[in-house]
Amino acid sequence: MKIARFEVDGAIHCGVVEGDVINQIEGDIFGEFKTTGTTHALQAVKLLAPVTPTQMFGPGVNFEAHLKMAAAITGNAEMLPTPEPWLKAISSLSGPNDPIVIPYDSKVGIEYEGECLAIIGATTRRVDPDEAWNRILGYTCGNDVSERDWQVNDFSMWRAKGADTFAPIGPWIETDFNPREGGDMIVRIDGKEVERVPTADMYFDFGTIISFISQHITLNPGDIVWSGTSGHPETLQSGQVVDVEVVGIGVLSNPIVAEQQPG
Amino acid sequence: MKIARFEVDGAIHCGVVEGDVINQIEGDIFGEFKTTGTTHALQAVKLLAPVTPTQMFGPGVNFEAHLKMAAAITGNAEMLPTPEPWLKAISSLSGPNDPIVIPYDSKVGIEYEGECLAIIGATTRRVDPDEAWNRILGYTCGNDVSERDWQVNDFSMWRAKGADTFAPIGPWIETDFNPREGGDMIVRIDGKEVERVPTADMYFDFGTIISFISQHITLNPGDIVWSGTSGHPETLQSGQVVDVEVVGIGVLSNPIVAEQQPG
Repeated sequence: MKIARFEVDGAIHCGVVEGDVINQIEGDIFGEFKTTGTTHALQAVKLLAPVTPTQMFGPGVNFEAHLKMAAAITGNAEMLPTPEPWLKAISSLSGPNDPIVIPYDSKVGIEYEGECLAIIGATTRRVDPDEAWNRILGYTCGNDVSERDWQVNDFSMWRAKGADTFAPIGPWIETDFNPREGGDMIVRIDGKEVERVPTADMYFDFGTIISFISQHITLNPGDIVWSGTSGHPETLQSGQVVDVEVVGIGVLSNPIVAEQQPG
Repeated sequence: MKIARFEVDGAIHCGVVEGDVINQIEGDIFGEFKTTGTTHALQAVKLLAPVTPTQMFGPGVNFEAHLKMAAAITGNAEMLPTPEPWLKAISSLSGPNDPIVIPYDSKVGIEYEGECLAIIGATTRRVDPDEAWNRILGYTCGNDVSERDWQVNDFSMWRAKGADTFAPIGPWIETDFNPREGGDMIVRIDGKEVERVPTADMYFDFGTIISFISQHITLNPGDIVWSGTSGHPETLQSGQVVDVEVVGIGVLSNPIVAEQQPG
């Protein structure tokens, strides 16, 4: 089942995506809900970020194929023994087709990171990895947009990965996806594939990451855990369109625009 | 004016504190609101964290008197040229009189950090320091509880300063406080003063920190910016009560309890 959040006629709803229509739902997507029979053409609504989390966590380097590139940033040439979570700012959240903005005062521009995201479905605290899997409602796609100068030189990732528009997610939550079997995570720039890796290659899987975080932090329904990225991301240019597809979930597409310096 | 958030008879309200009563308000504390004339004895309600932020930011070392102790953690012997913001996890938030819990798997126990907190009153993006002051609704007290082993050895402060119960705040928002004139920030353990520093000693003042964050991240009404701590915090023991007072705002008091290891 694909659960989307969308805006139509100035109101925000959730709905189940069935082909090219959305069947509006009433109730709580983290509890009881049902479809209402009120449908909208998918192309007639504005899809939004499918959840409004209280917090988002990314892991440290989580794909061995990303290690070589990451080592230049982190100084670590080997995979780490724990997931090393970090917080991604809530203000950075946006949805499908929303622009990713290159800040005018970015030092080195921005890079994509195509990722798979687990959406927490129930309050989660001090669970083991097996139980952690049961607390996941479903999965969506995300772009962990990154400014590498800030990532290297700031003491935290507050703006390197948390600046406004640096967290587009969507297009919806797929509840039937299984990242252990692994749909490929694909990034395309203007339609050209630049990255492909199976979710099953995650070094720490979602159960392990969520269990680890939950030892000290309560995860709430709607909270998001990012997979980490693989490969060697490239710099994005204004005017490009970047797609993140997770095969079995859907495609998240966002245009790149350059912020204009005031004055 | 002191604006509190509280629970009474199973419902949550905001109200204006007048002596030892709370005058319940209706409306939006960030917009239009008025007192209703429905009053409660202060001692008959449970005070809650006065806001529910979307994000909380702390600065790097922000008092010169904290530099010597902090240098052992950060490796920096001098004050830094920018505020170096970092994100404090939302799940860590709690209110007056809520227990601060020492995790059973903490390596070195936990320390208090008594701080003054600015509450953002309006959406804030790319403002200068002068304008940033206008975006502050008021101030409250907070305890930036810290686990130093995690702070030194983890790659981010996700649990070192973000574990559950590590962010008690309150008792209310004081809208008439001026940290540039500086009420003392005082910490007491079981009534004994262990720290005192004026808010006016902040190296980066709130206007500067908020302006700096707002260059890349939108701050929302209710978001919180912590002052940073001074001095040389001490380890907290189960059974103690720790008070953070900012003179001119009020007193935040929380008991310390040790988490029991399951099994």
